[in-house]
Order: sequence, then C-alpha cells, then structure tokens
Amino acid sequence: MDRDIIRKRIRAIRRELDKKKIRFLLVTKPANVTYMTGFLGEDSWAAIAGGRVYLLTDSRYTEQAQKECPSCKIIDRAGPMAKAVAGLVKKLKSVRTVAVEDSVSLADFEQLKKNVKARFKTAAGIVETVRSIKDESEIATIRSAAAISTKALAQTLPYIKPGVTESEMAGMLDFQIRKLGARNSFETIVAFGPNGSRPHHQPAKRKLKKKDAVLIDFGAKYKGYCSDITRCFVIGGMTAFYKKVYDVVEQAQAAAIKTIKPGVKIAQVDAAARKVIDKAGLPVYGHGTGHGFGLEIHEDPFLKPDGKSKLKAGQVITIEPGIYMPGKLGIRIEDDILVTKTDHKILTHKCPHSPELS
Amino acid sequence: MDRDIIRKRIRAIRRELDKKKIRFLLVTKPANVTYMTGFLGEDSWAAIAGGRVYLLTDSRYTEQAQKECPSCKIIDRAGPMAKAVAGLVKKLKSVRTVAVEDSVSLADFEQLKKNVKARFKTAAGIVETVRSIKDESEIATIRSAAAISTKALAQTLPYIKPGVTESEMAGMLDFQIRKLGARNSFETIVAFGPNGSRPHHQPAKRKLKKKDAVLIDFGAKYKGYCSDITRCFVIGGMTAFYKKVYDVVEQAQAAAIKTIKPGVKIAQVDAAARKVIDKAGLPVYGHGTGHGFGLEIHEDPFLKPDGKSKLKAGQVITIEPGIYMPGKLGIRIEDDILVTKTDHKILTHKCPHSPELS
Repeated sequence: MDRDIIRKRIRAIRRELDKKKIRFLLVTKPANVTYMTGFLGEDSWAAIAGGRVYLLTDSRYTEQAQKECPSCKIIDRAGPMAKAVAGLVKKLKSVRTVAVEDSVSLADFEQLKKNVKARFKTAAGIVETVRSIKDESEIATIRSAAAISTKALAQTLPYIKPGVTESEMAGMLDFQIRKLGARNSFETIVAFGPNGSRPHHQPAKRKLKKKDAVLIDFGAKYKGYCSDITRCFVIGGMTAFYKKVYDVVEQAQAAAIKTIKPGVKIAQVDAAARKVIDKAGLPVYGHGTGHGFGLEIHEDPFLKPDGKSKLKAGQVITIEPGIYMPGKLGIRIEDDILVTKTDHKILTHKCPHSPELS
Repeated sequence: MDRDIIRKRIRAIRRELDKKKIRFLLVTKPANVTYMTGFLGEDSWAAIAGGRVYLLTDSRYTEQAQKECPSCKIIDRAGPMAKAVAGLVKKLKSVRTVAVEDSVSLADFEQLKKNVKARFKTAAGIVETVRSIKDESEIATIRSAAAISTKALAQTLPYIKPGVTESEMAGMLDFQIRKLGARNSFETIVAFGPNGSRPHHQPAKRKLKKKDAVLIDFGAKYKGYCSDITRCFVIGGMTAFYKKVYDVVEQAQAAAIKTIKPGVKIAQVDAAARKVIDKAGLPVYGHGTGHGFGLEIHEDPFLKPDGKSKLKAGQVITIEPGIYMPGKLGIRIEDDILVTKTDHKILTHKCPHSPELS
C-alpha cells in the first residue's frame, strides 16, 4: 500500500485518538488492521502508538506483510498474541493505558489483561469513523469491484433459464466473479419466485420455472473492497402486478438517491424511499434503506428511520428499498452511491437493469 | 432437527454444566447455537437453564426457527440482544449467575453486564467438548459433505488445463459444489507450481503452464457440516523429484492414519507422519498434522506435537501432512477420518487421488 495514503489515514486516526486521549490503541478488527497497514492477510493485529504503526503477525504472513506494509514496523510473533502485545508495551516503556477495540473476544481480552502490564480501557468506532470517509484510492478500488460485479452479472444472465436451481445460479455468478480475479463480498443470495420475499433467503434446490421471478443480491470483493448490488429479473413475461410493484421500488430508490448530498440527514434519505412505497399503498420494507460499505460489507453510516447523522462527502453507501409480499413476490433494487462534494454519483449504473429477460 | 438427537445433546451438555456448577449458560458462538438447537440462521444466541433450551432470535428468522427448532422455546426479540437476555433472566427468577461463552465480543459482554441483573462468569469449551464426539446424524451429514466434495472435484478435473488461472479453477470447483446443493466449508485454496509451498495461498491470476503442479484444498459444507480435502495433481508429466516427494507425503499420511483408534495419544498420531518425512531427509511441515471438524472447519481435537489428549470414538479429524519447499513445490494430502469404536474409517477415500493427470 502506498506510503502517502497510509500516512494520511494514520494522521486522521491520530486526531481521533487525541480527542479521546488515547496514546496506545490495539486494533483487533481485521478491516481496521487492513485500513491502517495495507495488510490483507489474517490472524494479525495492529497497534498505534506515538505516530508509529505496528503489525503483529506470524511467520505464515511475514513475507506478505513485508510486501504490503512498507510503512509498518512488523512484529513477527512466535508465541501467543497477548505475549507479543506484552512485549511491545514493555519495549515502548511509557505505555500506561492500553485501549482495545471492543470487538475483541472476551477470551482474548482476558489473555491481554493477564499478560500485559498496563491498565486497560475499551475503544469503539475510532478507525471506523475515519474509514467511513473513503479516500481516492479506496473509491477507485470500489469502482473496480462494482465493474467486476456488473460484468459478472452480465455474463451470468444467459444461464437464467428454466430448470436451473437457485444454488447453481449463485454458483455460476460466483464463478464469473472468480474468473474476473475477485471474490464474493458476502454469500450470494439467489431467490426464485416467492422466495424473494425473504431478504435473507439461502439459495437452495428450488428450480426456475418457465414463468418466474429472480432476485439476485451479490457483490464482488476486489483488493479487499466490496460492492453490493441487487437486481430482479423475470422470465416468461411479466405480470401487470409485478411490473407495478417493480416500478414503485424503482421510483422509491430514485427518490432516495435524489436526496443524496453532503449534509443531508440520513433519516431524510431513508424516509424518501419509504414514502413512495407507502403512498402507492404497498407494504414498506422492514430493513434499512441502505448502508455504508468498503473493506466491510456493512459499515457506517446505516440508513435507518432513526438515523441521526448526516451524509458526508466521500461516503459510499447502498440504496436498497424493497417490497416483500410473503407467498407472492419480493423485489429489491440496490445500487452503490458515492457522496460527492456537491451531490452524488451512482457507481453501479451500468449493471443490467431491465427486469424482463427474453 | 430430530427431537431425540437434540435431547441427547442437551443431556450431555448438562452433564458438563453440572461438573462446573453452571445453572445458566448463554451460548453465543454460532456453531454451538446450531448444535444445541438445530437452528441454521444467523444473529441468534441460545441459553440453557434447568434443562430447557431457549433460542433468542428476531423476526427475520422466526419462521425458520419454528421449522428447525421444535425442541426450543423461541424468543422473538424486537430490541437489542442484551435486553432479550435480561428479560429471560428476569422471567426465570432464580438465576443469580450467568455464564457466558468467552468467544463473545467485549462490546456484547459490556452490554450484558449493563442490562442483566446477575453476576457474570465466563465459560469456555463446554459445548465444544460435547460437539467433539459426533453422533450418528452428524456422521451421516459429514459423509454427505465428503461425497459432494468428491463429486465436485471429479467434475472439476477436466478444467485443469494450461491457461486456466488459480482464481478461475477455484471458482469452477465452488460452482460444482453449489450445483450439488452445498456451499464451501472455507475459502477454496488453489495453488499452481511453487505457490503450493504457501499453505495459506490465496488463488490469484497465476496461469497453469503446460507442465505444472496443482494443489487444491477445499471442502463442501452441507446442512451445516463441513468436509476438508487436499489433493495435488500434475499435468504434462511428473518429474522424478515431484514423484519422490509425493510418495513420501502419501506414506507419511498413511503412517498417521494407521495409528488412529480410540485411546491413542494425539501426539503419537502427529509424530507418526513427521517421522516418515524426517527419515526421508525432507523438510517437516510447520502446521499441525490434522484437526477435528464438523459444524466448524477447525474444532477439537487439534493434532499437534504437544497435543496432550487422546483420540475418542466418534471424533472426525483430518490427516494432512505436507512437504513445502519455497520456490520449488508444495505437496499436501488431506483426508477425513472417523475414529470408530475399534479403529478408524477414511470418509474421503473415493476422492480422486492419482497425482498424474493426462
């Protein structure tokens, strides 16, 4: 990872740490470790103290860490993680209090308290706050992830034929993503017919019928960064009712996207989509209208009716209203939006969008 | 999930709880929740108290929980998890101490302490100890997962051709698994040529050459249960050196498998494989010789040189020695073995095994 980019990120994190008077932060959440160091491996923690960033890893990842993290001091631990942290704290001498991210497991925290000679306090959301605003390199990578998703879906469309199972279609889409050199951001959802009404449906043996509806919620992860798209299709001709509901979801999404610019309240964006569906006399979805994403698939900000914060330039969010009628249908449309300095940009507008497949 | 199976599991867990004088255990680890309840959804916790099992879930999963968990009392929480736990503890009246699995996050634990009127203590490995011995239904499902893996690999072999990338081959294998109605147990590893020497290699753009080696480490997850297999292949003719190393790995694996029966020390199984490689004058691998698996891909027992415990009937473990020569080659062979009452059974013996592909 480019040194200048990491330097900027560390500066921003240090500002947050100064506000909270934290002089030593132990970072245990994988996405936060990646953000601060550039490291894409596993089982590693980071620490920040006095402007210096330490990566605590082991021999499986030393080679990778040296390549990915030129700005870090790499600590190649042989024993347990807690002992490596203890060694670092001892070496730095002046550390009296260790702040630990509260996503750490209780087991790990107890090991830390046992091994490290320091007071402990918990910290929440520090790196996440900084990560919520994406820098240029992150936006470029998210754009690539979105482009791969788009291409993968386009290449999967010919396989939407009667007889295919949900599980098989999910597998084909994942294969196209792999073929393009990326991986899944999360487990692909493919739901046929009324299965679409369950937002967390797990693809199974259900076969596509001659006249049927398809809901696909998926995303490619590229160089650590996610994308997140939902599309709905129909084969064998669309019923008037499906068309009506689809149009309302599309209008709801457009209404929410239209409001997006820096300074707008999250609750306002959320309400814009719900209002359209409510006005049409159709059932309003129970989930949020969208969420931030980046290194993780779900990040700040979360677009909910009671969301208090305001959108900021550099955030990348989904907008994904839906209409769910159990036993009948489920339609959700989801795109990825960048909050720009003046308004917004849709990053996934090239992704196949016409619901009727031949 | 069958009521009788769950009842047996709960009885075994209660025996462990009695030993530790725990009257209320809060179970937060997903695999443990599944084991106790049969529930395959997400974001849910379980509690066991007075022989009764409670599943704390939310409206997204109520329907699924009712289907999957006939033996549980389902608590359909509307608010935060900690408040649902507080409500349950209050309702049960006599709970003075809540034991919480130590895999819980510090953030969740702090919420619990804030909301629940009880003393807290941490618990580790209770459900895991019981889960380490598989019951008949679990063994049957693991057999199915192994059969799916075997079939998926056989169907992927024709795609091992010069020009294919690691990432594409991993995607094709995953697709075959999906087509057979299962999912991945873990992220498929495909390593070409010398990349095989990195046990945690992430499949990337490397293309298969006309004369090349392939290492594939993968597994299907079926109805919640994993399988875990590694195979190595060569195209374009095998060098004498590759053949020699392959044979040694095969002999090392056979030596370890031969020792497997109830009562045998884990360290002894581990040593049997290492000894063969050491004797052949080749570098001995740095990882463990194998591990238990089931609902999770890595479970007790862990087969390491310093492993103190003994094998027990009903455990299902991998045996996976390897020889790694950075820049040259990496060969690992991994099969899944059931410890039977008298000796053992290889569950993956039908999986393609001949290293030389035409």
